[in-house]
Amino acid sequence: MNLEEKISKLFEKLDTLEHYANVMHILNFDTNTICPEEGREYENESYALIASLAYKITKSEDYINLVKEINAEKDKLDPYKKKLIEDLYREISNNEKISPELFEEATKLSSTAYNVWLKAKRNSDYKKFAPTLEKMVKMRKKLIDLRPQKEKTYYDTMIGDFEQNFYIEDYDAFFQKIKDALVPLIKKIRESKVKIRTDFMKRKYPLHKQEEFSKYLMEVVGFDMNKGAISTTEHPFTDTLARYDSRITTHYYEDNFISNMYSVIHESGHAIFGQNEPDEIYDNHLQNSMTMGMHESVSRFYENRIGRSKEFIHLIYPKLRELFSEQLSDVSEEELYLGVNAVDLNQPLRTEADELTYSIHVLIRYELEKEFINNPEFDFSKLNKMWNEKYEEYLGIKVKSDKEGVLQDVHWTDSYGYFPTYAIGNAYNAMYFNKMNEEIDVYSLIEKGQINKITDWMKEHVFKKASLLHPKEWIKDITGRSLDPQDFIDYITNKYSEIYKL
Amino acid sequence: MNLEEKISKLFEKLDTLEHYANVMHILNFDTNTICPEEGREYENESYALIASLAYKITKSEDYINLVKEINAEKDKLDPYKKKLIEDLYREISNNEKISPELFEEATKLSSTAYNVWLKAKRNSDYKKFAPTLEKMVKMRKKLIDLRPQKEKTYYDTMIGDFEQNFYIEDYDAFFQKIKDALVPLIKKIRESKVKIRTDFMKRKYPLHKQEEFSKYLMEVVGFDMNKGAISTTEHPFTDTLARYDSRITTHYYEDNFISNMYSVIHESGHAIFGQNEPDEIYDNHLQNSMTMGMHESVSRFYENRIGRSKEFIHLIYPKLRELFSEQLSDVSEEELYLGVNAVDLNQPLRTEADELTYSIHVLIRYELEKEFINNPEFDFSKLNKMWNEKYEEYLGIKVKSDKEGVLQDVHWTDSYGYFPTYAIGNAYNAMYFNKMNEEIDVYSLIEKGQINKITDWMKEHVFKKASLLHPKEWIKDITGRSLDPQDFIDYITNKYSEIYKL
Repeated sequence: MNLEEKISKLFEKLDTLEHYANVMHILNFDTNTICPEEGREYENESYALIASLAYKITKSEDYINLVKEINAEKDKLDPYKKKLIEDLYREISNNEKISPELFEEATKLSSTAYNVWLKAKRNSDYKKFAPTLEKMVKMRKKLIDLRPQKEKTYYDTMIGDFEQNFYIEDYDAFFQKIKDALVPLIKKIRESKVKIRTDFMKRKYPLHKQEEFSKYLMEVVGFDMNKGAISTTEHPFTDTLARYDSRITTHYYEDNFISNMYSVIHESGHAIFGQNEPDEIYDNHLQNSMTMGMHESVSRFYENRIGRSKEFIHLIYPKLRELFSEQLSDVSEEELYLGVNAVDLNQPLRTEADELTYSIHVLIRYELEKEFINNPEFDFSKLNKMWNEKYEEYLGIKVKSDKEGVLQDVHWTDSYGYFPTYAIGNAYNAMYFNKMNEEIDVYSLIEKGQINKITDWMKEHVFKKASLLHPKEWIKDITGRSLDPQDFIDYITNKYSEIYKL
Repeated sequence: MNLEEKISKLFEKLDTLEHYANVMHILNFDTNTICPEEGREYENESYALIASLAYKITKSEDYINLVKEINAEKDKLDPYKKKLIEDLYREISNNEKISPELFEEATKLSSTAYNVWLKAKRNSDYKKFAPTLEKMVKMRKKLIDLRPQKEKTYYDTMIGDFEQNFYIEDYDAFFQKIKDALVPLIKKIRESKVKIRTDFMKRKYPLHKQEEFSKYLMEVVGFDMNKGAISTTEHPFTDTLARYDSRITTHYYEDNFISNMYSVIHESGHAIFGQNEPDEIYDNHLQNSMTMGMHESVSRFYENRIGRSKEFIHLIYPKLRELFSEQLSDVSEEELYLGVNAVDLNQPLRTEADELTYSIHVLIRYELEKEFINNPEFDFSKLNKMWNEKYEEYLGIKVKSDKEGVLQDVHWTDSYGYFPTYAIGNAYNAMYFNKMNEEIDVYSLIEKGQINKITDWMKEHVFKKASLLHPKEWIKDITGRSLDPQDFIDYITNKYSEIYKL
């Protein structure tokens, strides 16, 4: 077989794998949206059956040899295929020495950890979770030991699994700047006398009108309804199942229409990314090679830079007043803008955090997991105490219970090194916002409702190479600069200084 | 391997086949409900991939031999397993001589026929469809020629595929009685001076309130929401995906709330059947062995015998008035009852037909397909003319176009012998209604909202052995009698004589 034939044989296998993945995504979407409670167990078994078919292919000698052989000649490939082979080869190498038994053991441990965490959280009792967390960390390190290529430390390796070519030194520098700038800013806001009106946000907004509002918002931001859909789930998410199938979900609360509003814009951002990647990406099986940081930068761009701007509020205010004439009769445009940007300095949950404090929530997790992964002497029984101290020091928040503290997130039941990616999306998008704003008048386009022109810029500069380049190369390709949180810091400092009259 | 080991090996394969079937049902449900338009093609390809995996199993020597070997010893099995093996053996035998190439040719022809029909219907031009219909009929006969066991005529064989052990002589006798009783009755109604009020049925009923009404109706009739769900599609359907997963769909029209109301009750009837079959049925892989006639008897029982009764209207009238206070302010309970039972003797569509004329629509199709299947000299170019003549003769309806005539139904693009099953459901349920009514006071239970007690009777007498017995055995098991349309004829004659004061 020559190289071309090998590629074509590999692509056949990838086609099948992608169909299995599509089926699994649909089953997962179905389970989360419509499947009745008692039907879920059987549906999960169906899922496991399809997953095992996919697993068999990726573990077959045939497949592994193809990837290895092509990898040996990767420099002859076009950039798309080269990136694909690098990704597949890394995946194969990382897993090759993991026996099916160890793989199963790790999967089981992680699902045990999930159940232990869930119970511990319900009882707000971190002590019950600590030993399992320690076991999980050991298991993750054991799996890393089996890799042919590792980074300097365990935590560096873990970081790279989620944001390629990123290391502790990158995040240390990044978070230091964030901390130096935002912690004092938050203190000032705590002392500010400005009181923002939020009473109207808790009024009752009928669910079916919120549904109508969701569709309006999706249209305004440019979600393509021919290539996507919306449904409801407990926790909103986006899933790009296939080239022409990007779905979002939301959750409606009668007494919190803002929650749905920003879920819809955020998830639409993710979907717009999926709907607008170029054909080359899909043709070359590269649709899943973006990092979380890159993806979140886009969803937050639509959610915050667009959706929480004065201009956007100006754009949608008439429709909101029309839909909710009763609830918003005494609310001005300015009050609405301030309301959606208010900071609540008493609430300890990351998922409920505002644009400003969000990065600090992530910073705390970063500092803690770096420590408990890389320090072999780490005392897991003290993690909740350390957590609470940092919340008090950085945010002035007194965490009242483990449930609202160290146990609030599910992530540590499964993986480590993922949290920091939550923070860099805002830094990426602040950088490309500034670049974009040199070329087109972003805020004026928002105000005029011409978000399609902003998305056109995003297609050309942000979406086009996202799956092709590593994040560091990518942000340089867009802006000509290396990742720097300063753009975000400047933007957020200005915005909140104005809002809280600092 | 002894018999027990063979059964256990077969059951393993059936477990896998059922998981594939579950996946295909979910994909199909997804395609019909939420999948965006441009995403459907890829989703269909995923479906085809899973279908091919299932096909491979049922065509494997391993599987075929197992079924054959167990079939040779079937008399040693318990009744559930014996029924299962008979079903599987018949299926294998019917298909064994059909080569994969011929199978593919037939599948392609059928999908071509669908497209030709769709286009012909759009243009209301039967001539364009006639040659394809003729080809389809030839192909179906060719496939029957390859079977080891055939009935006396092609049409008898086709009939038996949908309602086992039924023959032309059964349906001839059945439809003759229906014709003799209902055709004169319909003529009398045409001449009746009674005018039923239907204006309020065309008023605007907000969709979100109709959604609320659907949920209320499902609760009233006893649909178990923990084991089922509701969604929307162009054409309502029910799918029991798995033991604990029976889903229905509906379609909302702002100016026709009755359409949704009876779709929901009808489909809930199907789902209640699936939700209440005994565990033995699922444990023995018999969940798909009911016939269409048996299944429709139940859905129509809930839809018509319960849902269109005076007592049911009395039960739900207060809720309807509460939900639609504006639209129904001037409508009495009696007017509502008459409205949902009105006969429109100008409308030519089976799917829109009322309880009375429905069987005549089916009778016409039965007479025609019996003729064009079994008469080797049949002139397909004349089918539309024959159709229109029968509509005029039996229903007094002048069909204005092929679109509303011979091309209205999709079924003839794929199979023949299916239509008559649409008519016998009402006859079955009229028979078991009378039996039930000897034991419990059905109408009084409906009026009191105790439909669960009716469903309890259905569980014990109707659902319990439906998958285990052939339809003729089954109706005898329930009522002690053989299928006879007289119960239905009496019921419908009384009901409509009262409504139209004949």
